[in-house]
Amino acid sequence: MHRTYSMRQSRAPTASQLQNPPPPPSSTKSGKFFGRSGIGHAMRLKTHSALNTRGPELSKKLGQLVKMEKNVMRSMELVGRERMEVAQQLSIWGEACDEDVSDVTDKLGVLLYEIGELEDQYVDRYDQYRVTIKSIRNIEASVQPSRDRKQKITDQIAQLKYKEPESPRIVVLEQELVRAEAESLVAEAQLSNITREKLKAAYTYQFDALREHCEKVAIIAGYGKHLLELVDDTPVTPGETRQAYDGYEASKAIIQDCEDSLTNWVNSNAAVSSNLSTRARTLSQRRRNNIQRNAQGHDLTGQDQPLNDNESGLWVPAEVHKGGDEYEDEEEEEEIAHSHQGSITNGELRGRQEELA
Amino acid sequence: MHRTYSMRQSRAPTASQLQNPPPPPSSTKSGKFFGRSGIGHAMRLKTHSALNTRGPELSKKLGQLVKMEKNVMRSMELVGRERMEVAQQLSIWGEACDEDVSDVTDKLGVLLYEIGELEDQYVDRYDQYRVTIKSIRNIEASVQPSRDRKQKITDQIAQLKYKEPESPRIVVLEQELVRAEAESLVAEAQLSNITREKLKAAYTYQFDALREHCEKVAIIAGYGKHLLELVDDTPVTPGETRQAYDGYEASKAIIQDCEDSLTNWVNSNAAVSSNLSTRARTLSQRRRNNIQRNAQGHDLTGQDQPLNDNESGLWVPAEVHKGGDEYEDEEEEEEIAHSHQGSITNGELRGRQEELA
Repeated sequence: MHRTYSMRQSRAPTASQLQNPPPPPSSTKSGKFFGRSGIGHAMRLKTHSALNTRGPELSKKLGQLVKMEKNVMRSMELVGRERMEVAQQLSIWGEACDEDVSDVTDKLGVLLYEIGELEDQYVDRYDQYRVTIKSIRNIEASVQPSRDRKQKITDQIAQLKYKEPESPRIVVLEQELVRAEAESLVAEAQLSNITREKLKAAYTYQFDALREHCEKVAIIAGYGKHLLELVDDTPVTPGETRQAYDGYEASKAIIQDCEDSLTNWVNSNAAVSSNLSTRARTLSQRRRNNIQRNAQGHDLTGQDQPLNDNESGLWVPAEVHKGGDEYEDEEEEEEIAHSHQGSITNGELRGRQEELA
Repeated sequence: MHRTYSMRQSRAPTASQLQNPPPPPSSTKSGKFFGRSGIGHAMRLKTHSALNTRGPELSKKLGQLVKMEKNVMRSMELVGRERMEVAQQLSIWGEACDEDVSDVTDKLGVLLYEIGELEDQYVDRYDQYRVTIKSIRNIEASVQPSRDRKQKITDQIAQLKYKEPESPRIVVLEQELVRAEAESLVAEAQLSNITREKLKAAYTYQFDALREHCEKVAIIAGYGKHLLELVDDTPVTPGETRQAYDGYEASKAIIQDCEDSLTNWVNSNAAVSSNLSTRARTLSQRRRNNIQRNAQGHDLTGQDQPLNDNESGLWVPAEVHKGGDEYEDEEEEEEIAHSHQGSITNGELRGRQEELA
């Protein structure tokens, strides 16, 4: 387990690190959204490079995660495929051996092949998790234009007030700013709500899939050990021949039992438990109570109504936002189109097949 | 599950397959050890290509398996590494989010990183399994020369009897053949014993490692779901800010609980069981009883004595056999050297590091 219980480097710097600080970051290459270089500069940079295929700053980190997850999927797929090949090769080798070794290796091959198939199924479910994470990336990308617009109008007002303080356009722009701010408030609330909803959905899905996969593979491993007991490993002396093998029915029954166990596995009878200690349970419960109390403190029903015609309460498709189609990502263009068209929870949406084809 | 409960294509041919049989195998390119072309031909071929880097026919299929397992290991290693990278990227993304999302994604990163580390540990254990399978390949390779020698002498005797039936060398060769046959009987018994012993050891080890790995990952998945409950996903209305996050202690306690569960996991309290049905249990028990009865039928203690100074009863290192060093495999030369020098069960023998370096 990571020592500090955090992936972030939050440890205090060592004496040596304090003595030799890293060089200061280049002020011309900052590229940071929130930084000393000011928001306006970052905005202008972004506007000028509208044809650039990189997504807006806000969705960049998550876009990177989505890409990295694709690599994980490809590697897992490779493991599954190679495992199936190994299973076949084990059976091929065993074929020339004595009857018991031959039968058991063939059946072991069946079990290993099954692990490979489970791995392939897990990759499909991993893709579902990834598609859900993508929907967070998309909302991040769609919120950016509304931030941009607010900033742009604020800039224009400031410029006009400096150059032509009497211009009638200032009033028009100020009204526009009020509208932009309202839009931005909605967008930020959407971002907050969708991010949480989808984050929980994505990882709940991933962890459930992972648990199912792991328990099933552990079941197979157990039956594999039963199979091994059919091999007669009592040593023979030179010239002695082994007794005829009488385990064909037994090995077949073991495989059948294994298949039944896998077929009947449901989430509700998962064997591995992850119980919380008293301390963790108390702390978690306190947190959940607070969440619930806050939720009850407001009557949200009236306020939510105007947006309720959309799928997730506050969700507005990215293209509804002005400039929402600005987000482009060469590699993933097709996939974004998918997630805009169809619901994220649509079971038939399998990015993987098209991507890998 | 594989329909036929076998990896082998034992199904009856279809009408279409019977109508269009595959072309007959080329008689000049046979390459088969046991076939119509006769053992002598295969032997001569082998002798002439002694400098060929391919191993003897007998260990070829298993040599192939060993190579394929190396690929499985590399792919699994890749998955582990990529999973760790993904864990870090998730934390990086979460850093800019609200406090609760930031804390939970960071802690999720810790759990995912741990999965990656477990995968890496599993690869190490997979390598141990693979090294054990290699020892079967090595005994297969070492038995080959003794088969060859017997055949060679038999051929010489037949040739002499035809060309010079009165030659005094025939008697000498016949005595030599008796010795070669004795050697061969020992070699075949060794092959049978080592194959069974190591096959059971290798797969017992793999299945135990797999079970441990799977149960631990399932534990992590469970704690991951506890973490997700700390995220406040009650929707906020535009302009509303969320309550301050109070879950830092809770998330830390969850991670600590998870770490404790992983640290205290032992094989004996494995949660996933693979119980046999009554039928499979009866059949398996019958088979085991038969094995035991046969083992008791002989008093092997006296016969085994001459070889007892070796590690596994009948095991003789490959190089003791005349021509045992004939087996070569460019890619794996170094590894063979390893497994000749050290015991297979030596925990410090890790082919993986050197191979991948």
